[in-house]
Amino acid sequence: MSHSIELRKPYLIFVGDEDSAPYAKTAYGVRDWAPEACLAQTQLPGCAVDLALPHMSPEQAAEAGARSLLIGVAPRGGRIPATWEPLLHRAVQAGLDIVSGMHTTLDEIPGLSEAARKRGVTLVDVRHPRQTFPVGTGRKRTGKRLATVGTDCVLGKKYTALAIAKAMRARGIDADFRATGQTGIMICGSGIAIDAVVSDFISGAAETLSPDAAPEHWDVIEGQGSLFHPSYAGVTLGLLHGSQPDVLILCHDPTRQHLKGLADFPIVPLPFAAKRYLEEARLTNANVRLAGVSLNTSQLDDAERARLFAETESVLQLPCFDPMKSRLDALVDRILTP
Amino acid sequence: MSHSIELRKPYLIFVGDEDSAPYAKTAYGVRDWAPEACLAQTQLPGCAVDLALPHMSPEQAAEAGARSLLIGVAPRGGRIPATWEPLLHRAVQAGLDIVSGMHTTLDEIPGLSEAARKRGVTLVDVRHPRQTFPVGTGRKRTGKRLATVGTDCVLGKKYTALAIAKAMRARGIDADFRATGQTGIMICGSGIAIDAVVSDFISGAAETLSPDAAPEHWDVIEGQGSLFHPSYAGVTLGLLHGSQPDVLILCHDPTRQHLKGLADFPIVPLPFAAKRYLEEARLTNANVRLAGVSLNTSQLDDAERARLFAETESVLQLPCFDPMKSRLDALVDRILTP
Repeated sequence: MSHSIELRKPYLIFVGDEDSAPYAKTAYGVRDWAPEACLAQTQLPGCAVDLALPHMSPEQAAEAGARSLLIGVAPRGGRIPATWEPLLHRAVQAGLDIVSGMHTTLDEIPGLSEAARKRGVTLVDVRHPRQTFPVGTGRKRTGKRLATVGTDCVLGKKYTALAIAKAMRARGIDADFRATGQTGIMICGSGIAIDAVVSDFISGAAETLSPDAAPEHWDVIEGQGSLFHPSYAGVTLGLLHGSQPDVLILCHDPTRQHLKGLADFPIVPLPFAAKRYLEEARLTNANVRLAGVSLNTSQLDDAERARLFAETESVLQLPCFDPMKSRLDALVDRILTP
Repeated sequence: MSHSIELRKPYLIFVGDEDSAPYAKTAYGVRDWAPEACLAQTQLPGCAVDLALPHMSPEQAAEAGARSLLIGVAPRGGRIPATWEPLLHRAVQAGLDIVSGMHTTLDEIPGLSEAARKRGVTLVDVRHPRQTFPVGTGRKRTGKRLATVGTDCVLGKKYTALAIAKAMRARGIDADFRATGQTGIMICGSGIAIDAVVSDFISGAAETLSPDAAPEHWDVIEGQGSLFHPSYAGVTLGLLHGSQPDVLILCHDPTRQHLKGLADFPIVPLPFAAKRYLEEARLTNANVRLAGVSLNTSQLDDAERARLFAETESVLQLPCFDPMKSRLDALVDRILTP
């Protein structure tokens, strides 16, 4: 896709001097979901994160075939510490692209842009796309599309889409995960950070992300935000319209009582969420259907999980699953069968 | 508002060498809705547009107190023709800001940025905001808010909001029109071009536009796009959520069968549109209500208009009006009375 970011693989994953695994969740996500793209790891002194990949310097990794150094940690504040700069310069000199999802852009590092230009490598700020997009048209495209949507942010829309795309490919179905956020882009190596696109072009960017395809091809599109979130619903709706999904998967965290960080906004009931997402999605695909409910059950034990699935299935008459725990055969059947 | 554009008035309105009045609709809009801001007009040879304002050169206008030259035409293609450049340079030399809503930015005109810097004047590209905005919070703000929403784009949301703000002020109510598009910004001299804001910050920008205010103060907010438009619904929804309106006014063009330029998208029925806008708006204001329906009846005769109003009022049980034709007393009563 000419309009989206394309990353060069495989990666040398850099985890800085991070001493807390949760701040390295991008690194773990990329390692777990794109193991074939992860050649090695590199750390600074004091780092407590170990990805169980070979340790290599930038020079060794370049020699072994790495194409990019990927920054896999997000330190508190989102800024690139000065202590990282020498290693990033070494990576550029070794011929590696640098891939960052930080708030600060790579060209703010003294001398790095010029060094990259001279060495012929690229500095990729996944959070700051430089592409432009057309206005959306609503034109129906060929091929099939699935989109994950949710009752809130940060509850598993990305991992649900990744797990479904993987299960479909395991069944021999021609399926692509389509990334709409920075970690997803790093995992699959391409995509569009949809929340960084100028508002006028949200649905146009989403249309660009899943172009015309073969009739039996599936794009499995990572959702963003939530229709019920006062900060991000516009992003969610523009992405949904541009994606024109044939199938929706509704993602939910059953332990959450209100939106993350917004105590005044209760999580809406699942049947209400299902109805509203379908109403909205019908604007660009009259035949859209909901094929399953993805429940984040990481905080439940087996008995609680089984009870929750049974209860939710009886209310919604749809298969329930946890993308990190469940087999997805029945779900894939349901996705394929209109 | 620190985050929004602020224009310096009064204006010298420039209509170039335009030979077709429809391309000068910005100039007419500013003259009709902000007559006190319009000091004079200036043309190039061949211009067929006359705003019935005094003719002045940039130098004469500056001498008479003008603060900005406002480009009031949008030539086909949206680019600034080379033939305009000498006059724009003269305006800068005379000490006027330049205000443009064109796609090309003013700093693309050779030498203009530097001349403006030296002369201490500002080049304002209304379509390309340089401000940044916070993420929306959904926090309830003080004061009252009205938002215009529509069944499509380009059917009168701006003029409806302008007419309501004017009618409210005529009744002694403390009311401000809040502009969200370039023509609206030029008319009232401030605002935020909401469709040019990065997606992540749509509702945050809308929250910034109508800040906390006195309990009886009304912000009358210009809507954008339509929830039922596949290109722009994300902008519409983010703006709606950030505006947290107490009152909605639904705008509609009864002669339109499908979305402007999109023959595959029929205009939705008014009761359906009313229901959906209220559902969406409740996320950030549980007490939102619909107070009236604004009908663009410019293509109807008096008898047709009367019949349409009666018919629509009986279906929706709400006052109907045409902002360019009707008295708005009954509507304002309805707005003020929960």
